Amino acid sequence: MKINVEKEKILKAINSVTKAVASKTPMPILEGILIQTNDNEVKLTTYDLEIGIEYILECEVKEQGATVVNAIMFSEIIRKLPDTDISISINEQNLLEIECEGSLYKLATMNPDEFPELPQINIENSVEIEQNTLKDMIRKTIFAVSTEENRPIFTGCLFEITNNKLNVVAVDGFRLAWKSKFLQSKINDFTAVIPGRTLNEINKILVDSFDTIKIGIAKNQALFEMENCKIVTRLLDGEFLNYSSVIPDTWETRIRVNKNVLLNCFERISLISASSIEKEKKYPVKMSIDIGKVTICCTNQTGDAKEEIYVSTEGKNLEAGFNPKYFLEALRAIDDEEIYVDFGSSISPCIIRPVEEGDYIYMILPIRMKE
Amino acid sequence: MKINVEKEKILKAINSVTKAVASKTPMPILEGILIQTNDNEVKLTTYDLEIGIEYILECEVKEQGATVVNAIMFSEIIRKLPDTDISISINEQNLLEIECEGSLYKLATMNPDEFPELPQINIENSVEIEQNTLKDMIRKTIFAVSTEENRPIFTGCLFEITNNKLNVVAVDGFRLAWKSKFLQSKINDFTAVIPGRTLNEINKILVDSFDTIKIGIAKNQALFEMENCKIVTRLLDGEFLNYSSVIPDTWETRIRVNKNVLLNCFERISLISASSIEKEKKYPVKMSIDIGKVTICCTNQTGDAKEEIYVSTEGKNLEAGFNPKYFLEALRAIDDEEIYVDFGSSISPCIIRPVEEGDYIYMILPIRMKE
Repeated sequence: MKINVEKEKILKAINSVTKAVASKTPMPILEGILIQTNDNEVKLTTYDLEIGIEYILECEVKEQGATVVNAIMFSEIIRKLPDTDISISINEQNLLEIECEGSLYKLATMNPDEFPELPQINIENSVEIEQNTLKDMIRKTIFAVSTEENRPIFTGCLFEITNNKLNVVAVDGFRLAWKSKFLQSKINDFTAVIPGRTLNEINKILVDSFDTIKIGIAKNQALFEMENCKIVTRLLDGEFLNYSSVIPDTWETRIRVNKNVLLNCFERISLISASSIEKEKKYPVKMSIDIGKVTICCTNQTGDAKEEIYVSTEGKNLEAGFNPKYFLEALRAIDDEEIYVDFGSSISPCIIRPVEEGDYIYMILPIRMKE
Repeated sequence: MKINVEKEKILKAINSVTKAVASKTPMPILEGILIQTNDNEVKLTTYDLEIGIEYILECEVKEQGATVVNAIMFSEIIRKLPDTDISISINEQNLLEIECEGSLYKLATMNPDEFPELPQINIENSVEIEQNTLKDMIRKTIFAVSTEENRPIFTGCLFEITNNKLNVVAVDGFRLAWKSKFLQSKINDFTAVIPGRTLNEINKILVDSFDTIKIGIAKNQALFEMENCKIVTRLLDGEFLNYSSVIPDTWETRIRVNKNVLLNCFERISLISASSIEKEKKYPVKMSIDIGKVTICCTNQTGDAKEEIYVSTEGKNLEAGFNPKYFLEALRAIDDEEIYVDFGSSISPCIIRPVEEGDYIYMILPIRMKE
């Protein structure tokens, strides 16, 4: 194998594929990048047995071939070389030679035949959306996936096509994040639950552009296809929550508030609520809604916090307790300036939604306050 | 106690004093900030029994008093408040109340009488220099202080006034960093060894300005005085190295090279040299100097690296082995574009110095190469 390639081009490819490199694995080959030439292209592949990534780029191929090289060493060396053409080849001792101006690096290689094959995928359903849209949908929901492995289905996000709309939903038993997007063209309905970890890695590869990405769903796998890059992931097995049935459609108390003002209050009050010496004890914050005013309080051993904001209110007065972390994460994900926060009673879920856009909402369950 | 103060002003004071807050101490009072009013000033003090910092700022004092409050909680709350006036007072329950617009925070306090007093300092010698100069002198030497506690004197930097020149020197047994500065006015000679940790913290407080700082030296203590801020530190006890006697004044081999070109080579080659699986075994890099060319090589289990640079050379050909980390840290501290690297023999120290400025040098001892 011998190729010549621009540093910038191969570095972009490496940055994408290293997202699926295994770490601390008993199989060292999974810490590697499979490098394969094919005519005038080179393909980089990584696969940690959960996520697999392929990236194909055109380059000058002087000699066809394949090898596997440690991903970290390879990427760090390429990253630090000057911005110019790099020659990558295998020498007679079966070492990978990386040559660029006065620099020559030789790395141990592994047998490419031992690299596990990515699963074959028979796509049954698919949808194509813009990369910046998918990036935004992931960002607005991913924080609400569960980290508890005892109900694995909730460690992923539901991707659901229904009524020509893509819904992405995450739920962890205490809160729910739901973002939806109308689709331009008619798409067959489907549902799939994609692991949160996969979505986090995909989000790092997606760019803020109108270039599209195709999401293909098979029985147990999904395939994300971009221009040069394919990502394969397993799907999570099981029954997701029937989310639309748990979201209340009426409210008894509503506030309309500037998102940043409320966010800043929660940022400060979390300092007290999170500083509890007895970490196990939950110190919820108490929200009290009065005509024209919201008060948020928290008390524990380290201190006592009170925030008052003047807002426009509708409906009944109300008191309810919440985990401030759930408010914080939801408010940080909202881009809109003005939001509604809707409450039923002190024991029913609260709904946060932008005033302008109707296409995403957060639901947070209250905590019963000790009196 | 009750004061009114601008957020920005008190935050600047807090940012300075928190550098001497103890962490993980059996004495919780050392995790606090002592807040004391005096006429129309408030003084913040922290002291971890090694470094003590006092910061005085003018503000509206409505009621005199003193208290101690946990530094982390206090600083985090102030940091997150809006940019406006803040009222800070002690209430009847002896809680510190921080009030700002709609926000009210109450924090537990500690008894100010239990806060340890900063040592009294009888200054015997002193020197005044610009803050940006001191910052630069610290930055160019601090990385070479020893981290080995078995010879505590080398865990600090030597501050030496001699022949109207301030020398700052750090040495760890394998390398030496020396930066000097001619002084404008006649100063009495003195030497003092200031702990590296103190200098690191002082460096964070110093600003890049021509404002001066006065360094006062007492028997066992030093005092750094800036406009609003005083820093007290203990000195290290013992005999420092007679550094000027160990620096060779002749060379047999000299190269003149662009600092960044050499730095980039060492950055890359360190990837191989630092990646050794057997961390204990030192894998030095080998520098070979030939007419017009430097070659730097390193070989270990993970791979093999070779860097060639075309440079101007003088004197004999030479081969010597070095720990690349020492080259990296010295080269990163040099601001100049062109440097000399001077060698004696393969077992004598190598000297790195800027071509233009004669006021700082780095000395690195070679590693004997296994053949």
